[in-house]
Amino acid sequence: MKTYKKKNFPVTKIRRFLEPGPIVLVSSAHKGERNIMTMGWHMMMEYSLIGCYIWTRDHSRTLIEKSGECVFNIPEVALAPTVVKIGNSTGAEIDKFATYGLTAEDADEVGAPLIRECFANFECRLVDRSLIKKYSLFVFEVVKAHVAPSPKFPKTIHYRGDGRFMISGEETARWRRLFKPEMLEG
Amino acid sequence: MKTYKKKNFPVTKIRRFLEPGPIVLVSSAHKGERNIMTMGWHMMMEYSLIGCYIWTRDHSRTLIEKSGECVFNIPEVALAPTVVKIGNSTGAEIDKFATYGLTAEDADEVGAPLIRECFANFECRLVDRSLIKKYSLFVFEVVKAHVAPSPKFPKTIHYRGDGRFMISGEETARWRRLFKPEMLEG
Repeated sequence: MKTYKKKNFPVTKIRRFLEPGPIVLVSSAHKGERNIMTMGWHMMMEYSLIGCYIWTRDHSRTLIEKSGECVFNIPEVALAPTVVKIGNSTGAEIDKFATYGLTAEDADEVGAPLIRECFANFECRLVDRSLIKKYSLFVFEVVKAHVAPSPKFPKTIHYRGDGRFMISGEETARWRRLFKPEMLEG
Repeated sequence: MKTYKKKNFPVTKIRRFLEPGPIVLVSSAHKGERNIMTMGWHMMMEYSLIGCYIWTRDHSRTLIEKSGECVFNIPEVALAPTVVKIGNSTGAEIDKFATYGLTAEDADEVGAPLIRECFANFECRLVDRSLIKKYSLFVFEVVKAHVAPSPKFPKTIHYRGDGRFMISGEETARWRRLFKPEMLEG
């Protein structure tokens, strides 16, 4: 499987990769157990904060709540079959890294592993638990980001439900001249 | 400008259009004033709930907080220059419908107007205000949805910050056979 040479990336600029709405693989670990889940329900909340919805039925939810950490890993389209298999199996029964041939790498700031086969890895710390019970809503701060400089705009997959995906298309800055300069900083 | 013939659409299936992460135009109204804002920081929370982040500086935030309502309108790529202009101007100074030639239509369930030139309109009611102060996080329930049956997968724009957009690309269900049947319902 393809791997990537990654570099440190500013945590305040991760919207480049998350705001377009790709499917993300969330990795987690707690007391010797590790897991990976698929995640389509996430959003930027500040430039280095992420909000996301995690179902109560997800095995990863317990690992994330107990450890207070996870990693957001973004896969390219070549990994799509693996992404679907990850979303359709449970970490309560299998080790998804071993089953699907993914490589767990040590993170710098958190105990959850990075997935080597993803082009971006965002190390996250759970900073607010108050919305978990009522809304299954987790608020994470990205404490370290690793991104492959190439390709500049990887082909990401965007889920629609019902087994359908949109694959990222054309990239453009052709409307950039319409922005006020102060709106281009973020 | 292009308009669309829209039909009622099941509110529990709006993820088809929101989960891939498009830029949305949020329309609002309160006591004779109306406005439109651009929105890239949103996510599904349940099948008919939307979470989103609204900056304190946004003029629309007051209209939405006071009325408790808004409409999520999804534009196609042809509307991109207008979307950028909407995001780079303030409703405190202009009426964005009039300035940018957009048509306000009456909604069925809320006082905020639908934007005729968008292919989807989701009428929303604010159902949780408890997270607004701390996180600028609004939780909306979609109470009525209107979607154009054609095109089936409109070309949407996905913002990356810094004046750059990704335009939605290929649509596929080719990994559908890898899903468990019970995972395809949502």
